[in-house]
Amino acid sequence: MQKFLLFTPGPAEVPSRVLKAISEPIIHHRSQDFREIFFEVREKLKKLFATNQDVIVFASSGTGAMESAVSNFFCRGDKALVINAGKFGERWSQICRAYSLEVEEIKIPYGYAVDPSDVRKALQKDGKIKGVFIQGCETSTGVQHPVKEVGEVIREERGDDILYIVDGITAVGVFNIEMDNWGIDVLITGSQKALMLPPGLSMLSASQRALKFMEKSDLPKFYFSVKREMKAQQEGETAWTPAISLIKGLRESLRMIIDEEGLQNVFERHKRLAGILRNMVEVLGLKIFAKKPAPGLTTIEIDDAEKIRKRMRELGAWVAGGQGELKGKIIRIAHMGYYTEGDMIYVGNVLKQAVEEFKSKASAN
Amino acid sequence: MQKFLLFTPGPAEVPSRVLKAISEPIIHHRSQDFREIFFEVREKLKKLFATNQDVIVFASSGTGAMESAVSNFFCRGDKALVINAGKFGERWSQICRAYSLEVEEIKIPYGYAVDPSDVRKALQKDGKIKGVFIQGCETSTGVQHPVKEVGEVIREERGDDILYIVDGITAVGVFNIEMDNWGIDVLITGSQKALMLPPGLSMLSASQRALKFMEKSDLPKFYFSVKREMKAQQEGETAWTPAISLIKGLRESLRMIIDEEGLQNVFERHKRLAGILRNMVEVLGLKIFAKKPAPGLTTIEIDDAEKIRKRMRELGAWVAGGQGELKGKIIRIAHMGYYTEGDMIYVGNVLKQAVEEFKSKASAN
Repeated sequence: MQKFLLFTPGPAEVPSRVLKAISEPIIHHRSQDFREIFFEVREKLKKLFATNQDVIVFASSGTGAMESAVSNFFCRGDKALVINAGKFGERWSQICRAYSLEVEEIKIPYGYAVDPSDVRKALQKDGKIKGVFIQGCETSTGVQHPVKEVGEVIREERGDDILYIVDGITAVGVFNIEMDNWGIDVLITGSQKALMLPPGLSMLSASQRALKFMEKSDLPKFYFSVKREMKAQQEGETAWTPAISLIKGLRESLRMIIDEEGLQNVFERHKRLAGILRNMVEVLGLKIFAKKPAPGLTTIEIDDAEKIRKRMRELGAWVAGGQGELKGKIIRIAHMGYYTEGDMIYVGNVLKQAVEEFKSKASAN
Repeated sequence: MQKFLLFTPGPAEVPSRVLKAISEPIIHHRSQDFREIFFEVREKLKKLFATNQDVIVFASSGTGAMESAVSNFFCRGDKALVINAGKFGERWSQICRAYSLEVEEIKIPYGYAVDPSDVRKALQKDGKIKGVFIQGCETSTGVQHPVKEVGEVIREERGDDILYIVDGITAVGVFNIEMDNWGIDVLITGSQKALMLPPGLSMLSASQRALKFMEKSDLPKFYFSVKREMKAQQEGETAWTPAISLIKGLRESLRMIIDEEGLQNVFERHKRLAGILRNMVEVLGLKIFAKKPAPGLTTIEIDDAEKIRKRMRELGAWVAGGQGELKGKIIRIAHMGYYTEGDMIYVGNVLKQAVEEFKSKASAN
């Protein structure tokens, strides 16, 4: 018999009421029924993003919204400053290069967060930088970047001449990210993390400053055209056929987050869950890999990480491993979205069991 | 009480067993479970496309796959010949232009199919054309294009120097389209028509010839990179997080199509359904709008089309209207995917009822 809970940073567990909403008979997307659902979704997404701007929804994974954040707001040859602290920072660079942007990276050792003063230095050194790209949480290492402070530095140094682009895929709905107050120009997220949905939706919001940049952008885009989607979605429709069933699920999960639990309570819960799990990790004598750990996932340095991970899966908890050069060196336990204190006790004790088995094997040899 | 069946060319009705598969608890996409599902899906998609090439799956609507068919295989300034017989032909032109291709159109009056000899003339006139773009079925008018014959003309005129790109969104799984035998280079489709799924997935397959063109392509792409996806999907994974739940649904619908009913029987059923409905339309004294009607939908010339459509919806059948200049002039009744003879009798009689009510109102005035 196989039975396990997912503790992976996407996909995450999906509440059964969301699964139910997704599996209702299909409705047409050019209907009053859909318009009402979509209106509610869009209003709640604004709260989630802490913005008065429109939040548009794409049928794609989060990477699609990342691409959209590049192709809609920049021009060939524009200079981008990418905070690269792991695999997802690296993805910003890859996308920028795919679209002929010139990329300058602040390369940060795995496990560390960016120091805002390094962003200041980079901006002072190069006055041509048009956009700064960052993650709210670098999911490959579990690090939380100081999104607010970096935003302050950007505005102090360059005012309105530059865009601040934040990948909030494992941040939005996990911890506080205030798009408007923090001067974020483009904020994106995906469906399969804090939003408690299966993968297949991504969201993007753009500031007024970003919309001005958009008018000049000469990069090709079509499916991920922010302009087309904004126009259509302001009218309650979508430019292309939307992922109707997932949007129905999204309404349900947003009701849970915004109306029922409340966004601040969700943030508090994520902190609390992280605290519980990290205490258990410390008691086991293990080390947290991230120097500034984000509330959505806990990364743990561990010998034989892939073996531990496999054993944990057998015991009923599916956790993630390290990526790239971190493979075999860390495990990542996600707790963003549909997770409770009980889940933390469960996964923490599964980890304990796996670690103790390996220890006793090692001492027997 | 509201209760109706959808007869729209996307979304179409979704069988409850597919809805059930979609709403199963989420699994991780880097797991043996998912690999097995995805392997089965990919094998069955090859049968559906009648190809030995890989068929890759994107998390997007069909328009995403259309964009991918342009951005992966062509270069800036390449010349494209677009068969434009309606809104979806027009979309090919829009995408090509968004990617700086030079577009030459064969513009065909609404309701008509392309004449292969016009394609021959266009190719003879302009030796620089690198790609011919067509729809299997132009969904906005209900017309079936002679995909096989156009393919023959292309090879006779230009051999391997040119790509043949077919939008099969309302064709693949509706009627016979043989990618390999007909010399199609890029064939795409979407989930929410013959595949009996909610929207959110698209599929693309590329010939060996197309893969050679791909090596030279200088257009930007990232999320829709065929190269990345092919590499990942050949290893049973996906480049980006896949729409896991929809892919589980896709396995279910492909089992219904390929294993249970059989693809040829599905094609025969679509023809039979079209025949039944069109007979009823003729008996009502109404005219089919498409000169060469495709088996997947029936377009009907009708006065007060929008009023008829509204009344049909009240009576329990949601049909589509005309788009653009056809609005108010036609209705479109789709019958691709999860539809039976009983459904045709139902929708035909709903149409009859609506038409007769309008007639009696008119004669009362």
